[in-house]
Amino acid sequence: MDFTILRPLLKPNTTKIVLFIIDGIGGLPQKQDKQTELEVAKTPHLDALVKESICGLHQPVLPGITPGSGPGHLGVFGYNPIKYQVGRGVLSALGINFDLGPHDVAARGNFCTIDKQGLVQDRRAGRIPTKKNIELCSELKTIPLPNVDLFVRPVKEHRFLLVLRNEQLEGNLADTDPQELGKPPLEPQALTTEAGLTAQVVDQFIDQARHKLEPHYPANMILLRGFSKKPKWPTFQQSFGLKSAAIAAYPMYKGLARLLGMDVLQTEDTLEQRIHTMKTNWDTYDFFFLHEKKTDSSGEDGDFQRKVQAIEEVDQHIPQILDLEPDVVIITGDHSTPAELKYHSWHPVPTLLWSKVCRPDAVTSFTEKACITGGLGPRFPAEDLMPLALANAFRLEKFGA
Amino acid sequence: MDFTILRPLLKPNTTKIVLFIIDGIGGLPQKQDKQTELEVAKTPHLDALVKESICGLHQPVLPGITPGSGPGHLGVFGYNPIKYQVGRGVLSALGINFDLGPHDVAARGNFCTIDKQGLVQDRRAGRIPTKKNIELCSELKTIPLPNVDLFVRPVKEHRFLLVLRNEQLEGNLADTDPQELGKPPLEPQALTTEAGLTAQVVDQFIDQARHKLEPHYPANMILLRGFSKKPKWPTFQQSFGLKSAAIAAYPMYKGLARLLGMDVLQTEDTLEQRIHTMKTNWDTYDFFFLHEKKTDSSGEDGDFQRKVQAIEEVDQHIPQILDLEPDVVIITGDHSTPAELKYHSWHPVPTLLWSKVCRPDAVTSFTEKACITGGLGPRFPAEDLMPLALANAFRLEKFGA
Repeated sequence: MDFTILRPLLKPNTTKIVLFIIDGIGGLPQKQDKQTELEVAKTPHLDALVKESICGLHQPVLPGITPGSGPGHLGVFGYNPIKYQVGRGVLSALGINFDLGPHDVAARGNFCTIDKQGLVQDRRAGRIPTKKNIELCSELKTIPLPNVDLFVRPVKEHRFLLVLRNEQLEGNLADTDPQELGKPPLEPQALTTEAGLTAQVVDQFIDQARHKLEPHYPANMILLRGFSKKPKWPTFQQSFGLKSAAIAAYPMYKGLARLLGMDVLQTEDTLEQRIHTMKTNWDTYDFFFLHEKKTDSSGEDGDFQRKVQAIEEVDQHIPQILDLEPDVVIITGDHSTPAELKYHSWHPVPTLLWSKVCRPDAVTSFTEKACITGGLGPRFPAEDLMPLALANAFRLEKFGA
Repeated sequence: MDFTILRPLLKPNTTKIVLFIIDGIGGLPQKQDKQTELEVAKTPHLDALVKESICGLHQPVLPGITPGSGPGHLGVFGYNPIKYQVGRGVLSALGINFDLGPHDVAARGNFCTIDKQGLVQDRRAGRIPTKKNIELCSELKTIPLPNVDLFVRPVKEHRFLLVLRNEQLEGNLADTDPQELGKPPLEPQALTTEAGLTAQVVDQFIDQARHKLEPHYPANMILLRGFSKKPKWPTFQQSFGLKSAAIAAYPMYKGLARLLGMDVLQTEDTLEQRIHTMKTNWDTYDFFFLHEKKTDSSGEDGDFQRKVQAIEEVDQHIPQILDLEPDVVIITGDHSTPAELKYHSWHPVPTLLWSKVCRPDAVTSFTEKACITGGLGPRFPAEDLMPLALANAFRLEKFGA
C-alpha cells in the first residue's frame, strides 16, 4: 500500500503484533500420497489457532513470480517488492552481516577463469573451495585505492563481496560480467555522470586484481555484478509507526530487518531461544518479526520428511508465543519451498491472521488447500498484511469523514 | 474502474437497477455465541434471494482501512475513494443539507477556548451545548465581508459550518487549527496563489469573530479546517449513463448523492415509505440508491440486538422491492459497523448481486462467513460493483472486436 495514504492514519497504541515468518512454508503434494508437507505434519496448535483466525494465501510478488528471500520478506513487511528492490551487492552484504554505511558501494563478486586472450572460460572458476576464496580475498584487500576504503569479504565457493567506501561514490554502474563464455569481462561503465568516479575506482581495482590473480589459475580474474548502495527507504517505524524488533538467526534476515530500521536482537539458534528473546524484550517493542529457517532449508534439500518435522517443531512452539498475549499474530512464509522442487517457488503462501477482532472464516486447518477458502483470499498481495495487522491492532484512524 | 474505459461502452436500455445500501451491515461475532448480527438475524427473504445471486464481500477502500461514510458510499457508487476525496468542509455542508454552489468555499469550524496570551486551551470549547452554538452562529453571520456572501450554520455542540461565496474564492487553504494545545490558532495561509484572496477574506472573518466572541468564554475563538469547494467530478449520469435517484432520509447521504448529480427524492423516515417513494418514481429513473441507516446507528451504539432487529426489518421489506421487478438488485453496505466495536470498521462488507443473468454461486445465506466463498470474492474492490451492475442490466457494449 502507498505509505502516503497510511501515514496520516497511523495512531499510537500499546498493542503488540507478532509476525512469524516460517521460511518457505508452502509446499506441493508428494507424488505417492498426494499430500503436502503441511498436510502430513501434525499441527494441533496451528489448527486450533486457525479456527479463530482469518486465513488465505499471499502472493509474494506477482503471479508466477518466484521470489528470492529479499522480495519475499519485503512484501510481507508491507514494502511492495517491485517498488522496493535491493541491489545484489547490498543483498550480498546483508547475507554475510556486513554493516553497510551510507557511503558504501557494494558489489557481488565472482572469481572466474580467463584464457590467454583474456576471454572468460568459466564464470565461476570451477567453483573453487571456500578456503581458496578466503586466501584470494586476503590478497585483493591489500590493493591500494587512493581515498577509498576497500573491503573484500569471502562468501562461499567462488563468490565474494566487494565494498568501496567514499562519500563521492555512486552505485549506478553496469555489471562487468559479460554473462557469456568466450567474451572478455566488460569495462566498468558509469550509468549516470555521478558514477563516473566510481567507474574509475573499480577500473583500478580490477586492473590490479587481474595482476594479483594471474598465478592463481583457475581463479585468475574477477567479475562484478549488482553495484548498489544501501537504499534510502522509509523505515518500518516511519511507514507503520511501530517500534520493531527482528529475532532471526541468519544474517540475510537480520540484514533485511536492519535495512528497514528494525532493532536486530541478539539471539541464539533454536526457536525456543528465539521465543525466549521475544519474551525478555516484550515490553520494549510494538512489533516482533520472528524468523524460522529450517522449513526452507529442508525444502531446498528436497527432504520432505525433515520439512514435516520442522513444521511440527514450529507447531509445538505456538503456545509459547500465545502465552505472551499478543494482540495480533500473523503466521506465514516469505515464499513456498516445496521439497518436491528443492527450490523457492511461485506458489502462494499459507497465511493466518489472528486477533480478537479478525472476523474468523470457516477454515479449520492450516494447509494450502484449506486456506484457499479463507477470508483473506487465495492469492492476496503480501503487502496487504501490514495494513491489516495495524487495523487489528487498533492503530489506524478512520479514512475520510 | 477508469471511467474512460467504461464510457465508450455504455449503451442505453430500459432496465432498472436498485442499489440498496444497508449502512454498516457487516459485523463481528459476539463473544458468547460467536455469531455475527447477520448470523443471528432471521432473514428468510435475503436467504432466498442469495440463492439466486452472486455474492462476496467488498473492501471499501484498501486493506485495513476503515472508511468514513463519504469514502464508503463513493466506492460502492463506483468512484475510487482514494481518487475522489471530499474535503471536510464540503462533507460538513453535505451533513447539514447545505446546498453548496460552484463558487462556495466551505470549512468545518470549531468553537474553541483561548487564554489571555491567545493560546489554544481547549480545541472544543468544553463541547458547548448546541443551543449556545446556534446563538454564536447568529452573531458570526452578521460579520460584514466586502463582496463575499457569508453563511455560518451551527452543527452539533462546538461544530459549525462556514461557507464563503464569491467567484474568485478558492479552497486551497491550510487549516487554522494548530491541532495542539498551548499554541495560537494559525494564520489562514493560501496553499496556491489563486487562494490568496480567500486567505485575506478568512483572515478578516477570523479577526472579527475573535472580537465578537470575546465575551463568550469558553467559546471565545474559532478554528477552521478542511477548506474546500464542491468537487468537479463526472456525474453519475456521465459515468454510467444512468438517470438516477437517491432515496435516503439522512442529509449526509442525500448530500453525497447530490454531489454525483443524482436526483434526491423527497421521502419520509421509514423504510416502508422510502420503498413507496421508489415505487411512485419507478418509471422516471434507471437507477435507485436506497439507503437504510438503522443498522449503522445501532452498531455504533453497540446494541447488537437492535442491529439484529434492523436487519430483520430490512429482510421483511425485500419482497416489496422485488415486486417492482427490477432487473438488477445489489444489496450491500458502505462499510461494516460491528456492534462489538461500536464504530465503523475495516472488515469487508457482505454483498449480493441479483439479476436473471448473474450466474449464481453456491452461497445459501447472507452472512459474512458464507459470502467469503461467493463468486465476487472475499475482498473485492467496492468500485467493481457498478460495472457489474451495468453488465447485468445489459447496458454495456462488448470491448474490442
